[in-house]
Amino acid sequence: MPFPAHTRVTVHGPADDVRRLARSAAAVDEAMVPTDQFHEWFTDRGRRNRYQVRRAPIDRLHGWRTDPATGNLEHLSGRFFSVQGLEVSTAHRETREWAQPIIVQPEVGILGILVKEFGGVLHCLMQAKTEPGNVNALQLSPTVQATRSNYTRVHRGNAIPYLEYFDGEDAARVMVHTLQSEQGASFLHKRNRNMVVEATGDVPVRDGFCWLTLGQLNALLAKDNLVHMDARSVMSVIPVAAPPAAASAPDDFRGALARSLADQPRHHTGLLSWFTGVKSRRALDRRLVPLDSIGGWRREADRISHESGKYFSVIGVDVEASDREVPSWSQPLLAPARRGVLGLLTRRVDGVLEVLVQARTEAGTLDVVELAPSVQCVPENYEGVGGRLAPGLLGQIPSGPDPRIRFDAIHSEEGGRFYHAENRYVIAEIGGDFPEELPDGHAWATVRELNELVRHGHYLNVEARCLLACLHSLL
Amino acid sequence: MPFPAHTRVTVHGPADDVRRLARSAAAVDEAMVPTDQFHEWFTDRGRRNRYQVRRAPIDRLHGWRTDPATGNLEHLSGRFFSVQGLEVSTAHRETREWAQPIIVQPEVGILGILVKEFGGVLHCLMQAKTEPGNVNALQLSPTVQATRSNYTRVHRGNAIPYLEYFDGEDAARVMVHTLQSEQGASFLHKRNRNMVVEATGDVPVRDGFCWLTLGQLNALLAKDNLVHMDARSVMSVIPVAAPPAAASAPDDFRGALARSLADQPRHHTGLLSWFTGVKSRRALDRRLVPLDSIGGWRREADRISHESGKYFSVIGVDVEASDREVPSWSQPLLAPARRGVLGLLTRRVDGVLEVLVQARTEAGTLDVVELAPSVQCVPENYEGVGGRLAPGLLGQIPSGPDPRIRFDAIHSEEGGRFYHAENRYVIAEIGGDFPEELPDGHAWATVRELNELVRHGHYLNVEARCLLACLHSLL
Repeated sequence: MPFPAHTRVTVHGPADDVRRLARSAAAVDEAMVPTDQFHEWFTDRGRRNRYQVRRAPIDRLHGWRTDPATGNLEHLSGRFFSVQGLEVSTAHRETREWAQPIIVQPEVGILGILVKEFGGVLHCLMQAKTEPGNVNALQLSPTVQATRSNYTRVHRGNAIPYLEYFDGEDAARVMVHTLQSEQGASFLHKRNRNMVVEATGDVPVRDGFCWLTLGQLNALLAKDNLVHMDARSVMSVIPVAAPPAAASAPDDFRGALARSLADQPRHHTGLLSWFTGVKSRRALDRRLVPLDSIGGWRREADRISHESGKYFSVIGVDVEASDREVPSWSQPLLAPARRGVLGLLTRRVDGVLEVLVQARTEAGTLDVVELAPSVQCVPENYEGVGGRLAPGLLGQIPSGPDPRIRFDAIHSEEGGRFYHAENRYVIAEIGGDFPEELPDGHAWATVRELNELVRHGHYLNVEARCLLACLHSLL
Repeated sequence: MPFPAHTRVTVHGPADDVRRLARSAAAVDEAMVPTDQFHEWFTDRGRRNRYQVRRAPIDRLHGWRTDPATGNLEHLSGRFFSVQGLEVSTAHRETREWAQPIIVQPEVGILGILVKEFGGVLHCLMQAKTEPGNVNALQLSPTVQATRSNYTRVHRGNAIPYLEYFDGEDAARVMVHTLQSEQGASFLHKRNRNMVVEATGDVPVRDGFCWLTLGQLNALLAKDNLVHMDARSVMSVIPVAAPPAAASAPDDFRGALARSLADQPRHHTGLLSWFTGVKSRRALDRRLVPLDSIGGWRREADRISHESGKYFSVIGVDVEASDREVPSWSQPLLAPARRGVLGLLTRRVDGVLEVLVQARTEAGTLDVVELAPSVQCVPENYEGVGGRLAPGLLGQIPSGPDPRIRFDAIHSEEGGRFYHAENRYVIAEIGGDFPEELPDGHAWATVRELNELVRHGHYLNVEARCLLACLHSLL
């Protein structure tokens, strides 16, 4: 039992934690490892890792089998995950009924960042980790990133470093612990524990790990394909405090953001009440079906893909890696057809930043609906669907360089399940041509409202959380 | 769209609401209708209502049918609810696998209290309402208590009074709005919107309705079988403020309760972190099966019951009522075999009250686990089960009169689905013989922690919420 019910830790109170985390978010110069040196180390890691990913026929993946009756892809252990078919019906999407392959992974894994104070500043123990689906092999991951099958060592590989801080009896202090969902378009009900744990004793730094401040991580978010999705997800649930001078900060984007963090919502249950209303009115019916039975999808030796060429394909890979618990393995991955756009539209009202979110129902959403970014789409998926073009608000994101764009980077989705899955993450202020009337299911929220909801699971989807982390980095 | 996304109400801020609700909770003498007069009115209502409930064969309920293939009980409209069979498997109950009848009601209904200020004090519009399963026919219900089938008038009855304040375009201010679960032992995933809405204009008081302060409602909670479960559930989600003098209140139960409301949790994510850990480690598998197929249950003309005589029976009733939208109808109800015990054990630590909760997995729980009271059981159900006696902590509740008992009343569960379902609601301080080590899945929480979680759905089960309302009434 890692969290005995009757233990109350009294070293630091919650307000104290928020202050210490905010100090780390502001710290770049006080970092133990200067950012230049981090980049050198990271590049060197990339050079030294032996890593090879080869496409392989999906019916001949070592350790996996295709169920002859259903066509489902399953691990021989019955663990890890499977790829099955899902029939979906909901009145709340452009298409009301469809069928698709879906990853079924009922296990709850751990995404954990271990933190420790050095020189009065909290540092995060980050890991340079290869993933078979990463475009660039190596990205910066949390201290621990493990499914239950991993950490109970179904693969009979090496033990997972630092796991004992998150799931053991070791002396450590939980600062953040919440269950958060992952991509509802690809996973059925998948979620992970997002944790931040403070080490109270010495922590040996193992090969491939590095201490960075939150301020350094925030700066690294601006780089393409560097901070891994799991790291972004954990970063999004870390409490953020507005600088003390927020109330009187200049009326620019950053000042408005700081005030939005501190702002008392202007009415009692604004976003929460609206979200409850939307959830209570929507319905979502799902049924797992044989992967071979879903209409519109075609099975070939090396892929299962949609006959339109849109959406994604299920592919197989053989992997060799020098830095993982097992040196080689095979697995299926989902390969999106195109790059997507995840956009957060913002506005300033009376000097306070507001963020546009949408209540989104996806194939694998656990509880009908979650909050998604203002824009979440792969534009090409909408081409020619009943003559409809890309979702309306996509046009609100400036396509070229524009002073209204406050954040713009390419990030990858989790390379353990997705192959070369990139999204453009963009945060922009809306222009004068923004429609007066919001589309159905959209609402303006303050950053404080989002920060309060993200403490709990199944409010913000992973796309919204990752953008929230990017938004926090602009403080 | 009852809550347009772009509307921000600025009349009262949230802090202001909490203050006004706390003022109402302290108000008894300033009430518009003195409590004596309320009792007279309520008794008179009971005398004037014509109300008759007769047991009827379950296969011959007007408007209902037994599916010949499955034995499931269904409404002819396909709406309202059905009674089906459920197979359950979880490692986290005394019995790991079982099958039982379950009520399937996927619709989200509304439990709403309309409030309005009179003489500077918020009053709640309460309804004297008959329910077929109530032991005493009439109880005090929220302003609106309606399934979606009710309020979309599947029964072709009269319109539901005051519904427009909760689900319409009418001028009203939402103070509280949250989706909350109901009995997981009897319902599959059932939940309702729990709402408090402030009327901004005149409200005509219809026959059978009465304005009461929260202070009056709190006092009425001490009476047996008066405040209906749905009213208790809505009351539990109303924000509560500690009196300003709480910090220096005497070190008695009430002072400790006030400090527990205001107490900053002693570590960052205490209860939430613990609950996340428990949830991530538990599993719950369910499968709907034909009602006729479940082992251990016996179907007779007038009931479906467990062969041991324990748990509950499914029965049928014919109802005639003068105060409902339709004057007569038939329906199935669940009739528990015995009265249950819902107990909240408390202790004082450094002058702050702590409450013992357990993480409980029930047949119909939406998301694996919810927080339940320290004690939630029907003692007789445990007799003779593998020689096991009633759950351990039951013995911690004094059976006779005892100064440690702070609250003790009999309350009914919802009379629209349950027949004569009573529980003893008891709040007690633990004695000196309380075990040092808590049973697995139990944790101490401050009242503030519970109040923060109850703003969100699926943390506190309905039994814990009802006891939380009783605890608040002791302020």
